[in-house]
Amino acid sequence: MSLVGRSLIRIDDYSPEEVRHVLAVAADMEQRIRDSADLLAGRILATAFFEPSTRTRLSFESAMHRLGGAVIGFQDGQTSSAAKGETLADMARIIESYADLIVLRHPVEGSARLAANYCRRPVINAGDGGHQHPTQTLTDLYTIQRTRGSLDGLHIGLCGDLRFGRTVHSLLRALQHYDVRVTCIAPPLLQLPERYEPAGRPVERTAEIEPALADLDVLYVTRIQRERFADAGEYEAVRGSYIIDPGLLQRSKPELLIMHPLPRVDEIAYAVDEDRRAAYFGQAAYGVPVRMALLALTLGAVDSEGLAGPERNGHEWATEPRCPNPDCANRREEYSVPRLWVIDQTRRRCDYCDLEFTT
Amino acid sequence: MSLVGRSLIRIDDYSPEEVRHVLAVAADMEQRIRDSADLLAGRILATAFFEPSTRTRLSFESAMHRLGGAVIGFQDGQTSSAAKGETLADMARIIESYADLIVLRHPVEGSARLAANYCRRPVINAGDGGHQHPTQTLTDLYTIQRTRGSLDGLHIGLCGDLRFGRTVHSLLRALQHYDVRVTCIAPPLLQLPERYEPAGRPVERTAEIEPALADLDVLYVTRIQRERFADAGEYEAVRGSYIIDPGLLQRSKPELLIMHPLPRVDEIAYAVDEDRRAAYFGQAAYGVPVRMALLALTLGAVDSEGLAGPERNGHEWATEPRCPNPDCANRREEYSVPRLWVIDQTRRRCDYCDLEFTT
Amino acid sequence: MSLVGRSLIRIDDYSPEEVRHVLAVAADMEQRIRDSADLLAGRILATAFFEPSTRTRLSFESAMHRLGGAVIGFQDGQTSSAAKGETLADMARIIESYADLIVLRHPVEGSARLAANYCRRPVINAGDGGHQHPTQTLTDLYTIQRTRGSLDGLHIGLCGDLRFGRTVHSLLRALQHYDVRVTCIAPPLLQLPERYEPAGRPVERTAEIEPALADLDVLYVTRIQRERFADAGEYEAVRGSYIIDPGLLQRSKPELLIMHPLPRVDEIAYAVDEDRRAAYFGQAAYGVPVRMALLALTLGAVDSEGLAGPERNGHEWATEPRCPNPDCANRREEYSVPRLWVIDQTRRRCDYCDLEFTT
Repeated sequence: MSLVGRSLIRIDDYSPEEVRHVLAVAADMEQRIRDSADLLAGRILATAFFEPSTRTRLSFESAMHRLGGAVIGFQDGQTSSAAKGETLADMARIIESYADLIVLRHPVEGSARLAANYCRRPVINAGDGGHQHPTQTLTDLYTIQRTRGSLDGLHIGLCGDLRFGRTVHSLLRALQHYDVRVTCIAPPLLQLPERYEPAGRPVERTAEIEPALADLDVLYVTRIQRERFADAGEYEAVRGSYIIDPGLLQRSKPELLIMHPLPRVDEIAYAVDEDRRAAYFGQAAYGVPVRMALLALTLGAVDSEGLAGPERNGHEWATEPRCPNPDCANRREEYSVPRLWVIDQTRRRCDYCDLEFTT
Repeated sequence: MSLVGRSLIRIDDYSPEEVRHVLAVAADMEQRIRDSADLLAGRILATAFFEPSTRTRLSFESAMHRLGGAVIGFQDGQTSSAAKGETLADMARIIESYADLIVLRHPVEGSARLAANYCRRPVINAGDGGHQHPTQTLTDLYTIQRTRGSLDGLHIGLCGDLRFGRTVHSLLRALQHYDVRVTCIAPPLLQLPERYEPAGRPVERTAEIEPALADLDVLYVTRIQRERFADAGEYEAVRGSYIIDPGLLQRSKPELLIMHPLPRVDEIAYAVDEDRRAAYFGQAAYGVPVRMALLALTLGAVDSEGLAGPERNGHEWATEPRCPNPDCANRREEYSVPRLWVIDQTRRRCDYCDLEFTT
Repeated sequence: MSLVGRSLIRIDDYSPEEVRHVLAVAADMEQRIRDSADLLAGRILATAFFEPSTRTRLSFESAMHRLGGAVIGFQDGQTSSAAKGETLADMARIIESYADLIVLRHPVEGSARLAANYCRRPVINAGDGGHQHPTQTLTDLYTIQRTRGSLDGLHIGLCGDLRFGRTVHSLLRALQHYDVRVTCIAPPLLQLPERYEPAGRPVERTAEIEPALADLDVLYVTRIQRERFADAGEYEAVRGSYIIDPGLLQRSKPELLIMHPLPRVDEIAYAVDEDRRAAYFGQAAYGVPVRMALLALTLGAVDSEGLAGPERNGHEWATEPRCPNPDCANRREEYSVPRLWVIDQTRRRCDYCDLEFTT
C-alpha cells in the first residue's frame, strides 16, 4: 500500500505512520523549494472551489507550480456549470478527464467523499462545510514539529470556538497518536463536544485562559463567531476574555507557540505579531511545503511504499437509511447512495459527514 | 492554405477534409497526451469567458497545459473591463497583444465573428449565445468515430430540444458530409426547424422515442428546457417521455452510443451511467485531445498544409441593412459593420449570427 | 542600490535614471519576447485584484508567462478571504509565503503602500483607488519613446478629466524629468489641480482642443465621467467638444500620437482606429514588454546595479495624526500606523495616499 492515487477526505484516511511520512517529505520539500521544479512537470491540478479562499487555494496552487506542474480550476461555483444545475457527481466525473488530481472546497458536509466516490482521480478535501479540513491539520502538525522538534511531551491549549471549528476537530483526531496533554479553553457554550475527544485521552476543560496559559507550549486560537450567541452582550463579554495581547502573554512560557488557522478578526492583537512567539504567519507559510509533499506523494513522484495503511477494523456497512444530517451531501445530492458504518445494533455513522446517529 | 492562424467560428469554417484532419490529429494527441508537453511551450492561450462554463473552459486549459503552453483569461465578464463599458472589439484588440490565440464564450450571437473581425490573432468560438459551438461538434464527431471506427452507415437519433439547441444545429451541419441517416426525436414544439436540415439529406422526424430507438446506432440527447413551454403540464408530459432509463434501453442495440453534451439535469437517469452504452463522460473526456489538436494546428505546431479549404462559392456581399436579429452582435455593438451574404435578390444571411432574412 | 526586491507604489519610487533603465530593458524584452522564456522559470507572481481589470492583470500575467514564470491569484476580492473580514495587512503577509512578487489592485487609496509595509516581498501597485497607477505611466513613457525616439522637445497635450484621472497625475510626475511642453485641455471643472503641476515647469491650460491641437506631438486622451457633473446638460456640452474624430484630426500634425489608457467609451471615434496616428492599441500592447522588464528587474533576473536611486532629501517623518482622507488606507485599516512627511511646521503629506494637509 502507498499514498499514490489515494484521496484525503478526513485526517484518519492516513495512518499515523503515513502522516509522519508526509511531514518528513514536507521537510525535504522545504529544503529544495527552489530546485525541485520538475517533479510534477506535465501534471495538472484542478482546484474546484465553491467557497471563498485565499490561503488554501493559493497555497495549493503555489505548491503545484513550485513542483513544475500546471493548475486549472475555478474560484467560485457561480462560474462553473453548477450554476446550470449540474450535480457534484457529474462535475467530479468531468474534471477527472482534465486533471490528474482534484482539490475540492465545498459548503456541503461530506461533499468531498461524494466527489471521491464518483471520480477515478484522487480528491483532496480542502474543506467540506463544517466537517473536515485535513490539509490544515497536516500543516498544524508540521508547524509544531518543525518549531519544537517533536510533538511528544507538549501541552497544547485549544482556545476559542471548540464546538463548531472544523480545524480543531481534525487536529484532535490527529493528536491522539501523539503523547500530548490537551487543554480546551472555551466558554461553556462553545466547549468541545465529547464525541471529538481523542479516544482514551481525556482533555482538560476550562473557561479561563489566564490560569491555563502559564503551562502551555502551544496555544491554538480560533475565531469566536458572533452568530453563535443569542445574546449580543454575552458574546461581547466572552470574546473580550479571549483576546490574546501582550499583557496576557507576560504569563506565558518564552518558547510558547501561538497558532491560528487564520483569517483572524481581532482575537489576536496586532501588537502580538511582533512577538517571536507568534507562529501564525509561519504556520500559513508551512502550508506550501506540506501541500508540495501531498501533491508529490499522491501523484507518485515521491516514494511512499511500505508504510502501514489506516486500520480497517472490519466494519460492517449499511446502505440505508439516508443520513439524517440536513447539511450532508448524502441528503443534498439525491442520487447518492447512503453509506453507513454499523457501530452496533442501533448506532450508525455516515461515511460522508461522520455524523453518528441511532436508527 | 492551412489551418494556421485561422479562426473557427462556425463548423463550416473548416472544410470536410480539414475536419477529418483535426480528428486524425486528435487521435494522435490522445496517444501522446503525456509526452507532447513541449509542443506549445512559450505560447499563451487567452480564455475570455463571459458566461459560466466548466467543461469547455477547463478542457481548453487542460489541453493547453498538456501541450506545455500557458493560459491567461477571465471566467466571468464582471471581472473584466467589460464591466466599465468596454466594447467587444476593443477587448479583442487588447487581448491579441497578450496572447497567441483567443477562446471566446459570449452570450451574444455572432460575437465570436465580431471579435475575430477586429483581431489579428485567431479566435475560437466556445459558444456565442444560441448560434454555434463548433468545438463541441468536433468532439461529438471524434467520439463517434473513435468508438465506432467510422460515421459512415450509422443511424443517428437526435433527441430533446432540437429547435433551440446550438450543439444539435452545429452537429447537423457537420453530418451532411458523412453518409449517415438522421432521425429527429422531439415534441412538435421543439422539432428541428427546416433551415437546419442538411442540404440534400432530409431527416426523419418523430415525437416518439420508443419505436425509433431500436434501430439507432447513436442516441444524442439534449436537455429540454422548461422555459420553452407556456403550459407547465405540457412540459411535464413531454419531458417524461424522453427520460432515458434502463427500461427504455432494453429495446436498443447493444452497441448503441448514448451521447449528451452535458450538463444534464435528469434526462438521462443515473442508473444508465453504469451501462456500457453510456458514452457521455467519455465524450467530455475526448474534448481534451480534440482541443489539443485544434490548438496545435491553429498555432502551427502540427502540419496542416495542402488540405482543401472551405468552399467559397463566389458570394456577393452587402454591408446593409443592419441584421434584424435583436440578439445579434451586429445590433448589440453599434460600431460593427453589417456583413451579409447575398443569397438572391431579396434574401440575405447575416455573417455574424447566420440569420436569413428578406430585405 | 538596485531594483531587486523593491516595491513600486508611486512613479517617484524610481529615480529618473531607474525609469530610463526600465524603458531600456523593455526595449530589449520586446526584441526577445519569444526566446526569453526561461528568465523567471520557477518564480511565482501573485496577482491580487480587488477590482475589475482586463488590461493590467492580463498584461502582467502574459509578461510573467513570456518569461517562463507561473501565476497565482484572484480576480475579485469576493473570492478571497477578504470576504471573511481579513485585513489587507494579513492578506499581504499570507501571500508573501506563496509568491515571489505581488501585483495589487485595490479600491482604497494608499492600499498598495500599506501592503508593501507589511510584506517582505516586493509589491507592485496596479492601481490603488484614485491615487496612482505607475506601471501605466511606464507604459505611456515607453510608447512615446518607442514611437518618437525620445520624449525631449515634444509638445504633449493632456485632454479630458485632468482633475481626477490618476494616469494623468502619475504621467505628469514622470514628465518633469523630461524636456517637454505640456498643455492641459479640459473644461474648468476638470482642469488639472495645481498640486499636480510638475515642479518648476508650469503647464499651459485651455478649455478648447481645436486651437491647441495643431502644435501637439502627443495627444493623451482620458475619459470624462458623467458623474462628475451636477448638470447633465453641461456634461453633454463639454463631452461633445472633446470627441476625437477624423474631422478634428485634419488640423493635427501627421506624426501626432493619439494615446489613451483605455478602456474608452466614445471619446475617440471608431473611425480614428484606422488612422496611423492612433497609438492606443499599440500602447496597450507595449504594456507587456514594460511589465516583463519590471518583473525581471524586480526579481533580479536582469541587472540593475549601480543606478542612482530616488532622492531621499532628508525628510522628517511624523506618526500622527491619522490621515484626514476618508478614502485613505490609513483610515480604512485601523491598525495601520500613520506615516507623514513633515513638509514644514504645519504641512504634512500622507505616505499612503499622498494627500497634503495642514495640521
